[in-house]
Amino acid sequence: MKIDVIENVMQYNKDEAEINRKKFRENKVTVVNILSAPGAGKTSLIIETLKVFMDKINIGVIEGDISSTHDSEKIKAFTNSVVQINTGGTCHLNASMIAKAIEKLPLKELDLLFIENVGNLICPVGFDLGEKARIVLSSVSEGDDKPVKYPKAFLKTDLVALNKIDMLKYSDFNMNFFTSKVKELNPGIKIIALSCKTREGFKVWEEWIFDIIKNCK
Amino acid sequence: MKIDVIENVMQYNKDEAEINRKKFRENKVTVVNILSAPGAGKTSLIIETLKVFMDKINIGVIEGDISSTHDSEKIKAFTNSVVQINTGGTCHLNASMIAKAIEKLPLKELDLLFIENVGNLICPVGFDLGEKARIVLSSVSEGDDKPVKYPKAFLKTDLVALNKIDMLKYSDFNMNFFTSKVKELNPGIKIIALSCKTREGFKVWEEWIFDIIKNCK
Repeated sequence: MKIDVIENVMQYNKDEAEINRKKFRENKVTVVNILSAPGAGKTSLIIETLKVFMDKINIGVIEGDISSTHDSEKIKAFTNSVVQINTGGTCHLNASMIAKAIEKLPLKELDLLFIENVGNLICPVGFDLGEKARIVLSSVSEGDDKPVKYPKAFLKTDLVALNKIDMLKYSDFNMNFFTSKVKELNPGIKIIALSCKTREGFKVWEEWIFDIIKNCK
Repeated sequence: MKIDVIENVMQYNKDEAEINRKKFRENKVTVVNILSAPGAGKTSLIIETLKVFMDKINIGVIEGDISSTHDSEKIKAFTNSVVQINTGGTCHLNASMIAKAIEKLPLKELDLLFIENVGNLICPVGFDLGEKARIVLSSVSEGDDKPVKYPKAFLKTDLVALNKIDMLKYSDFNMNFFTSKVKELNPGIKIIALSCKTREGFKVWEEWIFDIIKNCK
């Protein structure tokens, strides 16, 4: 009985995600869902990307948090197309929340829409939001063992981005260990090492973004 | 109907937690439940505390992870009393999992039992495990806004520990902002700033541990 309920919830989310995906396709907007632990730098990555691209393409942002508008306030300085979702305690976004949020966004005008998921490496993994691509953002200061400890997040993603590489010199983070553990789970996955502080690695990140937008058009 | 189910689950957990708490009291073991985001340093805090106290008191550890024995392998070097719980996907420990785990521990011989919860600042908050004290461990590299973004974690805790203060000089972490936001939520709460790397702040941490053990006997 309990399993039935859970299956229904998951099926409902899948159906809603497909409706979102169709809407995104019709409006030719590329949607990227960003997952990470708290403090890995999702908001920083979005802000630095907005700075780079704001004169070239139109970017919207959906901010997911359990409470507060702390991150969307920061993002408002760089785009008007930002919507905050407060889950009120739920540890992930779902496709219905996204369906409501996009009613408030000028989808037709957007080239790219970032969804910043709730800071959590477990719960958001099972919830398709209708996105084109999913990113797992890890960071040097969290340690090199995150793929071992949160394998599903690294398995079900289209890109692994590793932030805060400017901190490598102060840490015992083993890049080979991290990379090999990610590749064990997800052999074909692309890993981009970058720093939102120094913009190291941003050229590769910008190319990745441009490529998925091109593929979406 | 849905709410009924959730209430039953929470009530069941509360009842199980009380059974655990009674067992801990009977065996005179002080139990500390550590919550944090992935990579904040729960395992490091436990290992450094084991190093300091291993000749003075008996410490056991319950390691909670969604999968792997990565952390308990590290801890085995410092205590034989370690049990791994793999939740298989569940984003928090619950009191029943703890009840099973303590069957494998020599409770009578232990003075202190650390429970390292699953790395997550949201889901574990609502689940009493029968502990004497709960700690939320934050870290400088996660940023100073964690109390704003995950308020319930900082509200329902007996201590806030801030790890990685050796990284303060490389970061824009604002200690006043962090402290004031924690105190807004939880005015009487004690905050201990420390570094598991340099052992800065460990004197205060050791005193706190000794005090709760004394209060428990």
